[in-house]
Amino acid sequence: MEVSIERAAQILRENDNIIILTHVSPDGDTLGSAYAICHALQKAGKNARIVSEKVPLRYSYLSDSIITPGLFEEGFIVAVDVATEDLLPQDAEPYKGRIDLCIDHHSSNTHYAKCWCVEPNAAACAEVVFKIISLLDIKIDREIANCLFTGLTTDTGCFRYSNVTWQTMNTAAQLMKIGCDSYRINKLMFENNSKARVAVEQMALSTLEYFYDGKIAVILVTLDMLQKSGVTNDGELEGIASVPRTIEGVVVGITIREKSDGALKISVRSDEALCNANILCSSFGGGGHKAAGGCTIIGKTIEQAKKELVCVAERILRGET
Amino acid sequence: MEVSIERAAQILRENDNIIILTHVSPDGDTLGSAYAICHALQKAGKNARIVSEKVPLRYSYLSDSIITPGLFEEGFIVAVDVATEDLLPQDAEPYKGRIDLCIDHHSSNTHYAKCWCVEPNAAACAEVVFKIISLLDIKIDREIANCLFTGLTTDTGCFRYSNVTWQTMNTAAQLMKIGCDSYRINKLMFENNSKARVAVEQMALSTLEYFYDGKIAVILVTLDMLQKSGVTNDGELEGIASVPRTIEGVVVGITIREKSDGALKISVRSDEALCNANILCSSFGGGGHKAAGGCTIIGKTIEQAKKELVCVAERILRGET
Repeated sequence: MEVSIERAAQILRENDNIIILTHVSPDGDTLGSAYAICHALQKAGKNARIVSEKVPLRYSYLSDSIITPGLFEEGFIVAVDVATEDLLPQDAEPYKGRIDLCIDHHSSNTHYAKCWCVEPNAAACAEVVFKIISLLDIKIDREIANCLFTGLTTDTGCFRYSNVTWQTMNTAAQLMKIGCDSYRINKLMFENNSKARVAVEQMALSTLEYFYDGKIAVILVTLDMLQKSGVTNDGELEGIASVPRTIEGVVVGITIREKSDGALKISVRSDEALCNANILCSSFGGGGHKAAGGCTIIGKTIEQAKKELVCVAERILRGET
Repeated sequence: MEVSIERAAQILRENDNIIILTHVSPDGDTLGSAYAICHALQKAGKNARIVSEKVPLRYSYLSDSIITPGLFEEGFIVAVDVATEDLLPQDAEPYKGRIDLCIDHHSSNTHYAKCWCVEPNAAACAEVVFKIISLLDIKIDREIANCLFTGLTTDTGCFRYSNVTWQTMNTAAQLMKIGCDSYRINKLMFENNSKARVAVEQMALSTLEYFYDGKIAVILVTLDMLQKSGVTNDGELEGIASVPRTIEGVVVGITIREKSDGALKISVRSDEALCNANILCSSFGGGGHKAAGGCTIIGKTIEQAKKELVCVAERILRGET
């Protein structure tokens, strides 16, 4: 049954011993939303705890002043920012099929819970959670505000993506008025590149080549660069594939990454109105969305792969595919 | 004489034939503020025009639907986002010493105008202008909102810098509610690097050096890099100085730029809680805010300047200054 913000708040008020579920590969929005609710419910004197995969280190502040409750019998199950039950992590397996309330902002939400409160126009699930918590009988404090702000800013690329509305900004304003550490959180989320990451990006950009009148840009990330820069995990490469597309005039950005087994991992970012990244990647056995896609090329040199990728991209830009 | 927001609005209402002055090397805040006032005054049926250096191409939308007025005798002179008369461009030379109203947000404003309305806590001059325009007898439309949003987002690094307050976010929310093109403006300002800019940034990052246990980072922008990359104007270098400070663990980012006359232009970006950029730059005859400052070093090599800057920065970090 679909429920309103008011009804969702009432349901939370009426229940206790609450388990809060987050999605796999937890991000700032699912964690921020979950911890905000957990804080709020604990402040209201209830038992509440979160079930999630290991929380990445950079989100560790979200649990500041969270109470680790004693064992309690599970009375009520809430999922936040989880569009389908398939996106629940291993640890949440026992709760599948018996989730009481789902709070979300994905239009693709499959309505798997007994009650769902889904606002597809919200930029972040934290926006929906803010409205619900505002109706509980507690004061939203700095800890809760920090959790919600984390959800807002991470799901909007620091208020830059096209999903941001005046309501998003207004919610952020209210959280900042409460005193959340917006500057510190933004810095931690967006300006905290490792030295290795900065080095590998610099090296990758030194390989930047343009094709087709500057509309196609290609960069390489080689094994040699990873070694020289000291990159130790894939997380440090996050976002590099987006760089070529931010260059003026570039419609298709292609990143070719050399893997240790000799395969080439290709990431494509495109202006979806002019080049469908999914079509480009599908030609090489991969896929994706209109604006972002990927594929793997095996048994070719970087030069060969580059030539073939650029050739297909040009054909798409000429409207031949 | 210091004047309130209300009085500044009243003064604008009472005057006509208004010249609006911007600062040298015009940025999004001085231009956005100036065009917003110009739009508003023209909407109120007054003659108004802007005096500025050539407006960089990426800001050309600010003058959408601005009226080019016929010749009019100058009745009233306003300066926006101009901290001192020294920061006025060549074209504004005739107005020095006779500026009627200054609207600004720099705490370093020298009160050179007959009346000044300065709010040092505002993240952008556009925040102050928004309050003043709200008191004029006109409706803030999409064009005005676009100008003000441009000022807000450029002076805050897309709402990321430490100067952002809940009022900044609240102002942005109000402008977005009016229907400003926030997404398009942010994309244009922050994801539209020229090919020359990408090239020069890559070269600058190849000179990246760390000092003092990785807390100080220095990059160089040499004349050779500018020539090789094809950078033709200062606008293309905007934001490069912020790059070193976004690296994990870096507290002070220093950018040393070689000028054609042999002088070295220094830009400092710092974590204001740990290193006051103004103190660092003042030691070299410059100045600025806590988190951002600049100075010019003459008669020294890049290596000498780097050594001296790092030395003073270390002393500040050790708490010796």
